[in-house]
Amino acid sequence: ESMLQASSSTSGIGVDQELISAVPSSNPTFVERNFTESEIAYCRAQPSPTASFAARWVGKEAVFKALGVASKGAAAAMKDIEIVNDEAGAPQVVLRGDAKAAADGKGVNKIHISLSHSDTVAIAFAQASSA
Amino acid sequence: ESMLQASSSTSGIGVDQELISAVPSSNPTFVERNFTESEIAYCRAQPSPTASFAARWVGKEAVFKALGVASKGAAAAMKDIEIVNDEAGAPQVVLRGDAKAAADGKGVNKIHISLSHSDTVAIAFAQASSA
Amino acid sequence: ESMLQASSSTSGIGVDQELISAVPSSNPTFVERNFTESEIAYCRAQPSPTASFAARWVGKEAVFKALGVASKGAAAAMKDIEIVNDEAGAPQVVLRGDAKAAADGKGVNKIHISLSHSDTVAIAFAQASSA
Repeated sequence: ESMLQASSSTSGIGVDQELISAVPSSNPTFVERNFTESEIAYCRAQPSPTASFAARWVGKEAVFKALGVASKGAAAAMKDIEIVNDEAGAPQVVLRGDAKAAADGKGVNKIHISLSHSDTVAIAFAQASSA
Repeated sequence: ESMLQASSSTSGIGVDQELISAVPSSNPTFVERNFTESEIAYCRAQPSPTASFAARWVGKEAVFKALGVASKGAAAAMKDIEIVNDEAGAPQVVLRGDAKAAADGKGVNKIHISLSHSDTVAIAFAQASSA
Repeated sequence: ESMLQASSSTSGIGVDQELISAVPSSNPTFVERNFTESEIAYCRAQPSPTASFAARWVGKEAVFKALGVASKGAAAAMKDIEIVNDEAGAPQVVLRGDAKAAADGKGVNKIHISLSHSDTVAIAFAQASSA
């Protein structure tokens, strides 16, 4: 029975990339509309806040893709997808609002995420799983 | 029993990237050899057909990698891997011919795919699952 | 029962990218510290050893991320993560030492990996699974 509970299936995957310079993280309206307080505090404390905001931005897009729903770009509730780091530094996804409803509707109960950035490009990969 | 049927295992994963300018999508022979009619119609209707062809090209390579078989480059039956979008805009993989045989031989019954492109680079990620 | 044993769950995923020129593969100390003999032999036999070393380097970083542990950069035991190709050319991960202990501690018994490089950028994706 415990093995049954431990097994899960991939519901969807998502990859997204963006030039770091294309994510307007110096625009306070953009930041406040799309990032939670925890994300903003985390990114501003990083060596390169610009790169950290960009990595989270593509992370949110990757989560949308993994959920199999269109992100609607700037109109999407990007703030409903929060990416915070655990004590080991690994990013974790928290869903709220419409994003949570979309996940629930598909039986998704876990989203794995990984982020990476070079000097110029941010990339993210997400995997949505159902148990 | 339904939980058993719902569970699955990852058989393989694949990532591929390419400069969009390196995919010769303005060459009709290249396009007809490697893309299905549905793919060609879809890509030509996109804002940037060149980027869309490149994204599907790396998608096909990523599927080959996820299946754990060498793609044989230009000699591979890239056309046997079709990537079409569902009504929500999410890309779906359809296998035929040798690609289908390779998947069947490994017990793979589902391939997840995600595509992304910036102005210059196309990237794809694929995951092959067996139930 | 066999279906139960075949099912597995994703424990974590990891993505990493790097400019090929940023991986100092012409430095023998760097190479000997971070790559196994099998990896060195393989990379040196490839058309572009520099690109092959870079792809394996980001592969190791992606595995660390998939395990959910901080890689500690140059201080990490990158050599404990070996990426060798099977007879079909598909990369396989072998863990030793601390990396093996971290995987065992999380119940991870399989790590899938895929590598890709363009002329300038190497990228890797890893997925850790527990049965």
